[in-house]
Amino acid sequence: MTGAVDGQHGAFAPAAHPMKIDGKPWRTIWLEPDGGSIGVIDQTQLPHQFTTRTLRSCDEAAEAIRTMVVRGAPLIGVTGAYGLMLALQVDPSDAALAAAFEQLNATRPTAVNLRWALERVRDRVAPLPPAERAEAAKAEAAAIAEEDVAMCEAIGEHGLAIVQQLAAARPAERQGQPFHVLTHCNAGWLATVDWGTALAPIYKAHRAGLNIHVWVDETRPRNQGASLTAYELGREGVPHTVIVDNAGGHLMQHGQVDAVIVGTDRTTRRGDVCNKIGTYLKALAAHDNNVPFYVALPASTIDWTIDDGVAEIPIEARSAREVTHIQGRTAAGELAVVQLTPEGSEGFNPAFDVTPARLVTALITERGVAPASEDGLRNLYA
Amino acid sequence: MTGAVDGQHGAFAPAAHPMKIDGKPWRTIWLEPDGGSIGVIDQTQLPHQFTTRTLRSCDEAAEAIRTMVVRGAPLIGVTGAYGLMLALQVDPSDAALAAAFEQLNATRPTAVNLRWALERVRDRVAPLPPAERAEAAKAEAAAIAEEDVAMCEAIGEHGLAIVQQLAAARPAERQGQPFHVLTHCNAGWLATVDWGTALAPIYKAHRAGLNIHVWVDETRPRNQGASLTAYELGREGVPHTVIVDNAGGHLMQHGQVDAVIVGTDRTTRRGDVCNKIGTYLKALAAHDNNVPFYVALPASTIDWTIDDGVAEIPIEARSAREVTHIQGRTAAGELAVVQLTPEGSEGFNPAFDVTPARLVTALITERGVAPASEDGLRNLYA
Repeated sequence: MTGAVDGQHGAFAPAAHPMKIDGKPWRTIWLEPDGGSIGVIDQTQLPHQFTTRTLRSCDEAAEAIRTMVVRGAPLIGVTGAYGLMLALQVDPSDAALAAAFEQLNATRPTAVNLRWALERVRDRVAPLPPAERAEAAKAEAAAIAEEDVAMCEAIGEHGLAIVQQLAAARPAERQGQPFHVLTHCNAGWLATVDWGTALAPIYKAHRAGLNIHVWVDETRPRNQGASLTAYELGREGVPHTVIVDNAGGHLMQHGQVDAVIVGTDRTTRRGDVCNKIGTYLKALAAHDNNVPFYVALPASTIDWTIDDGVAEIPIEARSAREVTHIQGRTAAGELAVVQLTPEGSEGFNPAFDVTPARLVTALITERGVAPASEDGLRNLYA
Repeated sequence: MTGAVDGQHGAFAPAAHPMKIDGKPWRTIWLEPDGGSIGVIDQTQLPHQFTTRTLRSCDEAAEAIRTMVVRGAPLIGVTGAYGLMLALQVDPSDAALAAAFEQLNATRPTAVNLRWALERVRDRVAPLPPAERAEAAKAEAAAIAEEDVAMCEAIGEHGLAIVQQLAAARPAERQGQPFHVLTHCNAGWLATVDWGTALAPIYKAHRAGLNIHVWVDETRPRNQGASLTAYELGREGVPHTVIVDNAGGHLMQHGQVDAVIVGTDRTTRRGDVCNKIGTYLKALAAHDNNVPFYVALPASTIDWTIDDGVAEIPIEARSAREVTHIQGRTAAGELAVVQLTPEGSEGFNPAFDVTPARLVTALITERGVAPASEDGLRNLYA
């Protein structure tokens, strides 16, 4: 189910799809022209090879999520929604719907967004006659995708206003220089359907003509920064530089970071932010150097049931092999995995950490910008 | 000049050489039994292959430093000192001495310790008749090596006292658990002649029977933690776990780090610490979580001419290729370099950062433990 780039990617209007690769508009997921299968970008091969896959069954959709062909909470949710459509095309019975729901939901059990999207499609189609379910699932999945794009674009607009204000407020001698944003991991359009969350304000600013430059944390152990964020920014022509995760504090000490913008996997009621491991260290450095630290998020990441993120959010430990081994491209152009550690040395791999709200300058949401506090969030989402 | 492990490593008394590999005592550098050539461990092949090299000329010594076959400020200094011996064995003239000095000093121009060791040997041998110079250089180089071992062991003893106090002061429910030390980069015996600086207290504590466990920051981009520190600790049987540089803050938030101990390349008069990039981020996290943060150093790293490290210490930017590419071992057992970043994405690679003295709990030196302040240092070295 692997295909080369062919520029044919489905039934959407180009005007609504701003992200480009080699000048062509792309989304991370689309309905193929046959109207019954789904196309995705294979993110396991990036940044070294751009290939797409066609998902023709619920099994293939589940496998794509499980093996991280698609990743990023919003994109996983949309893939799951389309996975239900694929299941219902074959068998629209109640039993098949329930089985597909369980199969897809089990692929990434900690992804809140996945369950939310699956429930939304299930609740939409379950009351319908079986013969109408597949089409209804298709429409609902498409709606989820379109809503995600709209939310991300709104985050981009609100973040753009912040970036423009900060850039204008710099001392006169800095006005001619690039506005430097540091980001961690990948909260770009590859993690969503289009635009991204943390990167949406950057794309907006770049297109608005602001002289912007991005410091890209490589984001060990899975290197989503060095691979996905660098790839995205490069394809869009946004000036950027890859740095090791160790370097950000030094850059901030020397005035080389004007703002930090990151995404979040889960945000607590009071504004604590659970994001990719290492985010907390950048927040500490930003705080120590008076660099504003922003978190971009759609409302779906807010967990109103949790207050103290450090104490209450369980942190998933992933395979130690992600620490001890790494994938890259050999001089011969092939993908290869190499071991970094000595035989007998174990690794430990917590996937996320929690940044306390006290270190967060503000939250950038699709509804506007809020202080990282319960009052701030409730005022937006009341 | 590459040799396999043969257990023959020169004219030293095993009792004085505590570090072991597979049960055999080793130093990082030694006079070979012929009395006229130098043996070293080839650190570019660790942790995957243990090989030694014999350095038979000043050219070979210079090349070993330049290509990082040997690295770590103290070890570079000793290698340089022996390099002068190798030069003088061939030609003991004033002109040859001056030429060898310049050749060796140019290999790592920023390593303060290298110039110091070269000057010490040169000043010792220059007044002598040429026929006596090679033997005098040999003796002086050996003296520098022995002094380094003694200093590191003294750092180990002073650090051991701190570790024992901290371990004993833990709450009763933590007494049965390992004492967790986090370290960054490699400040172990592979960076010195024996014992190491930051790792010396850990080796002392392990041998004293303390239940100690080390979190090893992999230390991108050169991965000296994942390769050298993990290798050292593993060979000595010290329990340890490799983590990505992003993980330490999370571990501290959850009470999994009892102390941080790191080394330093340069320490300012007031106690600011210039060490491997990323050290500052760990110091911030330690401070935010009330985890004591120690820096182990011999007096030779103190720069009495500098006060404000962030403002005054120039930070070397190394090759971006260290960020964009990485070396590891393939499944077939061969060393290979793979590219991590997309074509067209540049990297930036500052090699060190500066941790302000306000974040340092104390300095552990060969003369004892001092507050990170000008008074603290002057009281020790008055």
